[in-house]
Amino acid sequence: MQTELSKQLGVEHAVFGFTPFPAVAAAISRAGGFGVLGAVRYTAPEDLKRDLDWIEAHVEGRPYGLDVVMPAKKVEAPSGQALSEADVEAMIPEGHRQFVRDTLAKYGVPELAEGEASGWRITGWMEQVARSQLDVAFDYPIRLLANALGSPPADIVARAHERGVLVAALAGSARHARKHQEAGIDIVVAQGYEAGGHTGEIASMVLTPEVVDAVDPLPVLAAGGIGSGRQIAAALALGAQGVWLGSLWLTTAEADLHSSALTRKLLAAGSGDTVRSRALTGKPARQLRTEWTDAWDAPDGPGTLPMPLQGLLVAEAVSRIQKYEVDPLLGTPVGQIVGRMNDVRSVRAVFDDLTRGFEQAVDRVQRIAGRSGQ
Amino acid sequence: MQTELSKQLGVEHAVFGFTPFPAVAAAISRAGGFGVLGAVRYTAPEDLKRDLDWIEAHVEGRPYGLDVVMPAKKVEAPSGQALSEADVEAMIPEGHRQFVRDTLAKYGVPELAEGEASGWRITGWMEQVARSQLDVAFDYPIRLLANALGSPPADIVARAHERGVLVAALAGSARHARKHQEAGIDIVVAQGYEAGGHTGEIASMVLTPEVVDAVDPLPVLAAGGIGSGRQIAAALALGAQGVWLGSLWLTTAEADLHSSALTRKLLAAGSGDTVRSRALTGKPARQLRTEWTDAWDAPDGPGTLPMPLQGLLVAEAVSRIQKYEVDPLLGTPVGQIVGRMNDVRSVRAVFDDLTRGFEQAVDRVQRIAGRSGQ
Repeated sequence: MQTELSKQLGVEHAVFGFTPFPAVAAAISRAGGFGVLGAVRYTAPEDLKRDLDWIEAHVEGRPYGLDVVMPAKKVEAPSGQALSEADVEAMIPEGHRQFVRDTLAKYGVPELAEGEASGWRITGWMEQVARSQLDVAFDYPIRLLANALGSPPADIVARAHERGVLVAALAGSARHARKHQEAGIDIVVAQGYEAGGHTGEIASMVLTPEVVDAVDPLPVLAAGGIGSGRQIAAALALGAQGVWLGSLWLTTAEADLHSSALTRKLLAAGSGDTVRSRALTGKPARQLRTEWTDAWDAPDGPGTLPMPLQGLLVAEAVSRIQKYEVDPLLGTPVGQIVGRMNDVRSVRAVFDDLTRGFEQAVDRVQRIAGRSGQ
Repeated sequence: MQTELSKQLGVEHAVFGFTPFPAVAAAISRAGGFGVLGAVRYTAPEDLKRDLDWIEAHVEGRPYGLDVVMPAKKVEAPSGQALSEADVEAMIPEGHRQFVRDTLAKYGVPELAEGEASGWRITGWMEQVARSQLDVAFDYPIRLLANALGSPPADIVARAHERGVLVAALAGSARHARKHQEAGIDIVVAQGYEAGGHTGEIASMVLTPEVVDAVDPLPVLAAGGIGSGRQIAAALALGAQGVWLGSLWLTTAEADLHSSALTRKLLAAGSGDTVRSRALTGKPARQLRTEWTDAWDAPDGPGTLPMPLQGLLVAEAVSRIQKYEVDPLLGTPVGQIVGRMNDVRSVRAVFDDLTRGFEQAVDRVQRIAGRSGQ
């Protein structure tokens, strides 16, 4: 499965796998794809360094990349000064904090232990955190830097290009994609409505060719709704130069969700069991629908706060829900493809299914077109 | 573009075109596809008869079909007796009627002339109307009967099968599709989130293969987001035996929207200019987003009524908005593919683009798979 982009990056298959887990990223690259480590959960640069060291030791020389989250708009004081996490915390209304406490109390969610840090942090949303991640990452031979929110700042694009690192950015509309192109990025990830995490309203079937045409000749990766070889063939038929898969790896054997209850929920969920909600970060992000997302989306709730306030507001609560596996509230960002994630298999097994399914889908389309298959 | 289903129906290309316009339906069939006439706008059986006569005279012996709308739930009195249109009208609250009057007044929408009938009727939603349509249609050599809401009643399926007419039903989920299969229908139209008209939450990229697997070996047509040969190739790669296109024909030369202002709005609209709203029928249906849909979807509005009440409530208003081309309120059901409908061309020109684009997409996928293209 070779496109110009996969050749440029030296990978066997134009399959890009986004994952927060180093073991998954390395396994995707070893399987012949391109593993991309999501950096948003790293607060401390040394943790990211440790995990990049691990990938280096396990990737067998294959290429891989890093995904950071730099919001297009900085959170700053009216003076234009960057704000600290504490400054931002202070902007959260007490009524919202009370709603979090009340909701957790209603479900009897225990407190974290004294001094126990919230394991689930989203401070990576803040530009200064993302920049410290990049200071670490540029010491490693990453081949791709992706930004999940808006175009990365010009100096970051320049630093990446100096090091021969391709820059990718996610887009949910053709207009958004053209902005990335103007910002000098190299690859657009067209993220459809059905995708997990932050996503827009336009579904992949419409979005992918629209973005392909809008930014031509930039290569486009299709994201959203892809978890089988048939869907990969579809995305490539739509004009993508590769696919960007995130959700599918969450139930692989190498993934480390720290919660068997969450894994069970993912395995059981159907394609209709997700919701596009602002509950997690303040921007619409597709995730498992739970009583937690229902509470935030209810008309009689306080409503969500803008990014990054919502993420800071709920960080500890989400950690508690995950630690104590409070089933009705337990969720995670995931796309509609969750309906296909029905067993735990190795990354290699999943990957082999993708490439085999792709070949079968190409056979099928060739037959329909009246051309001889293989 | 040949699948088992296209061979069974004797068409050159597995492209099914749904349209309310006889001239478009006939042109699709003449171009090598399968035209399906939407019957919902016909209140009087003799109007449907006139238009089927016209199709017969212009289809050059090619096969075509009919699409009706029979709600799964009948509107009936507690006694189980079928209700007349007048009975149903009486169920509409006065507050909702006032909201319609106020909204129309706010935009200065003129009244219809004395005695002028509302041109835009949705009484076809009611089962007794759909049955009278079928009494007409079964006298014609239709090859396909599609139902847009739920499975058709068992006696209708039996009548169709006696006449060698294949029965299709639209589905927005695998569960819904399996119900159709149990009801004995022959073809499932998997209608994705991005589609125009009544549609569910699951996007085509995820829905199509899910439905294909759920109802195997029944043939599935992919609907939603398809308006180019690339998208047809994608849908077939996903496992569909054909595609079902509705929106794309609205801006063809043969379409008769009775409103140049509406045509202009469709040509100008982008993929982000639609909304899935209950404003038109009471069930979520994708349509152009307008100040009319915004008014119904606003949190301080009265909310929409269930089908068929909402459709009866707004029928005259929609006629007035369309007749007087009141721009901010003027809309129509259409899918996200509206972003690709940017010029008025003949059905034949549109169709030829589809087949040419399909061949190019197959070339592309073959090259990526390392197989020689044509």
